[in-house]
Amino acid sequence: MTIAVPQRILIAPSGFKESLSAAEVAEAIGAGVRRALPGARIDLAPLVDGGEGSAAALAAATGGHLVPVPATGPIGDVVPSHIGVLGGEGPRTVVVEMAAVAGLALVPHGHRDPAATTTYGVGELILAALDQGAERILVGCGDSGTCDGGAGALQALGARVLDASGKDIGRGGAALAGLARLDLDGLDDRLAGVEILVACNPHNVLTGAEGVARVFGPQKGATADQVEQLDRALSTWAGVLERDGHPGRSHDLRTGPGTGASGGLGAGLSGGLGARLLPRFEVMFDHVDLDALIAEADLVITAEGAIDFQTPRGKIPAEVARRAKLQGKPVLALAGSVGEGADGVHEVGIGSYTSILNVPMPLSAAVAQGYQLVEDATEQLIRTVLIGCAIAAA
Amino acid sequence: MTIAVPQRILIAPSGFKESLSAAEVAEAIGAGVRRALPGARIDLAPLVDGGEGSAAALAAATGGHLVPVPATGPIGDVVPSHIGVLGGEGPRTVVVEMAAVAGLALVPHGHRDPAATTTYGVGELILAALDQGAERILVGCGDSGTCDGGAGALQALGARVLDASGKDIGRGGAALAGLARLDLDGLDDRLAGVEILVACNPHNVLTGAEGVARVFGPQKGATADQVEQLDRALSTWAGVLERDGHPGRSHDLRTGPGTGASGGLGAGLSGGLGARLLPRFEVMFDHVDLDALIAEADLVITAEGAIDFQTPRGKIPAEVARRAKLQGKPVLALAGSVGEGADGVHEVGIGSYTSILNVPMPLSAAVAQGYQLVEDATEQLIRTVLIGCAIAAA
Repeated sequence: MTIAVPQRILIAPSGFKESLSAAEVAEAIGAGVRRALPGARIDLAPLVDGGEGSAAALAAATGGHLVPVPATGPIGDVVPSHIGVLGGEGPRTVVVEMAAVAGLALVPHGHRDPAATTTYGVGELILAALDQGAERILVGCGDSGTCDGGAGALQALGARVLDASGKDIGRGGAALAGLARLDLDGLDDRLAGVEILVACNPHNVLTGAEGVARVFGPQKGATADQVEQLDRALSTWAGVLERDGHPGRSHDLRTGPGTGASGGLGAGLSGGLGARLLPRFEVMFDHVDLDALIAEADLVITAEGAIDFQTPRGKIPAEVARRAKLQGKPVLALAGSVGEGADGVHEVGIGSYTSILNVPMPLSAAVAQGYQLVEDATEQLIRTVLIGCAIAAA
Repeated sequence: MTIAVPQRILIAPSGFKESLSAAEVAEAIGAGVRRALPGARIDLAPLVDGGEGSAAALAAATGGHLVPVPATGPIGDVVPSHIGVLGGEGPRTVVVEMAAVAGLALVPHGHRDPAATTTYGVGELILAALDQGAERILVGCGDSGTCDGGAGALQALGARVLDASGKDIGRGGAALAGLARLDLDGLDDRLAGVEILVACNPHNVLTGAEGVARVFGPQKGATADQVEQLDRALSTWAGVLERDGHPGRSHDLRTGPGTGASGGLGAGLSGGLGARLLPRFEVMFDHVDLDALIAEADLVITAEGAIDFQTPRGKIPAEVARRAKLQGKPVLALAGSVGEGADGVHEVGIGSYTSILNVPMPLSAAVAQGYQLVEDATEQLIRTVLIGCAIAAA
């Protein structure tokens, strides 16, 4: 008798930070699936969330390319950065990945002071996107090392951010405490003709108890005093944006969805440029018709570097599972590590998860062997699924 | 519609050395199964192979008890040891676990010299078994730290192992090189009325290219020279056993199955006492009707501390899988670590295997958290099986 087994498998993973890109994870999972189930049709849909590696991943996925752009890093020195010019049809689209110029990884450990770091370079990358003839700019948030509300980015684009004596305030979130006025007259003229979409985690808001200074400040290096100081400074910033900002800005710049994205860059780009703050997966999954691929699949495999209590709160595997659940499709997840609270992912539609680890080892070894571990773990995972198929058929 | 899922699950694991007994592993797996599949009927059959922990496990499984016995350890000092008096019907049976008195774990690292270590204590435990009124003695081999061909055990039981001048030779495998004669006249009279079964790995033979000195000597601490010396000494020992030994001895004491078990203890007990050398699983699984439990199961779960190239060569998961395969039953395996050559287990009937590890960690952490890791990994494994069941039903 013939046992029904998965005929078509969708592989829709995130990358593993510091180890494998989403495309590499997808390829490794695909290799593992083929070892266990050589006859299956496999669709690869590596996914990014707007953070580190997103520009490169979207450029690769659409047949576009990267343009190198030296720009101001988070602590003020020039860093090598890049923008992603996407291929494909539709308006000429350029991806500006904030982490590529103002990410936490670019802030040396001795300089982790979110009161001082700047998004100035993000504005420079937007200028570079305009130089590339962008008709649409996708700003990817996530993995930021800043908390300046995007003020630095607006300054780079020609806005003036002024204190009570009419002088430009300095860089960094703390300087916003001395803010009196925003002058947008000097903004680059080309911005008027461009659609700017900001890919945000909608849970991130600018101020208050759940505000970005409180939630993310400590991991960016802020002390308890600095957290309070930054929260007040961002509140001042929101008031000025509401009074002097762009007419197309979001209604609520303080607690509106995504206003706190990347240390308040969301609020700054909305308030200063009228950029649209969108849920990141709407923007970042736009190039792949994920729902259509899910509809064709008998089984979906996703993955992320870590599966834990944060996963259900808007991480890629949770979004994949949410969409798969709507279509009643089963989802398996692989992870480099499985941490506290991982069992919360079952509620969002992940049927089971497994770590790729095979022997006791330090993180460095897991990172170095990532590809092989993913491939091997996937083979065993599919073999286990096939045992289930056989039991059901018995 | 109702999806067919496993209704009855047999849990038949080995223990995890230095971490969990077989019974604890079985219990942890059972807890994980219940979390994923609360309605399933679960049979627990923790298994031991004759090595470390076997006496305690068999005593527990049969409702018997342990008797503490101080005895001579492998380097000659007295160590606290024990024998297992089994419960249940049939002849009064006592388990003598060689590892409990002459195991490698009892040899301090500075004393790992298999030319010098002795099985004298094994003979003392057999005497203690006779004192308990044993009608049948099961000698469990495995995890030994000796290579004296069982000569020490025979000496403790009253045999004389003599050199050319008629003096008793010293302890340890190297002393066998000076051997001239074996005198069994002084053996304890009670031995004549007792059935002695030795649970051996049949692959272990006494001498030659695959002999115990060559295969296991180095891991017990022998140098290359000592390996050759021990192999020659064991060959001398075999010749003397063949000439002066028990009439009920095995036909081939040099390369017969199990003659090399526990540094040649198999050959010594056969040649000196007429003990029967049996495949260890026949002896050690005797208290549980494994084949009957397999027949009732929809799914079998086994486990071992490590799954690697050694697993198919006579380890517990391979034996469980071999028996399950004969009945066409699927087998899943859990392991603390998955090493080189693990994929060889598919051929012996293990459908898939998975490591219990969830995050990068040192071995000590894995050992400390063993129970929880097994339980958690089992839940996810069953969830994966259920996904397979659902796919087959879709």
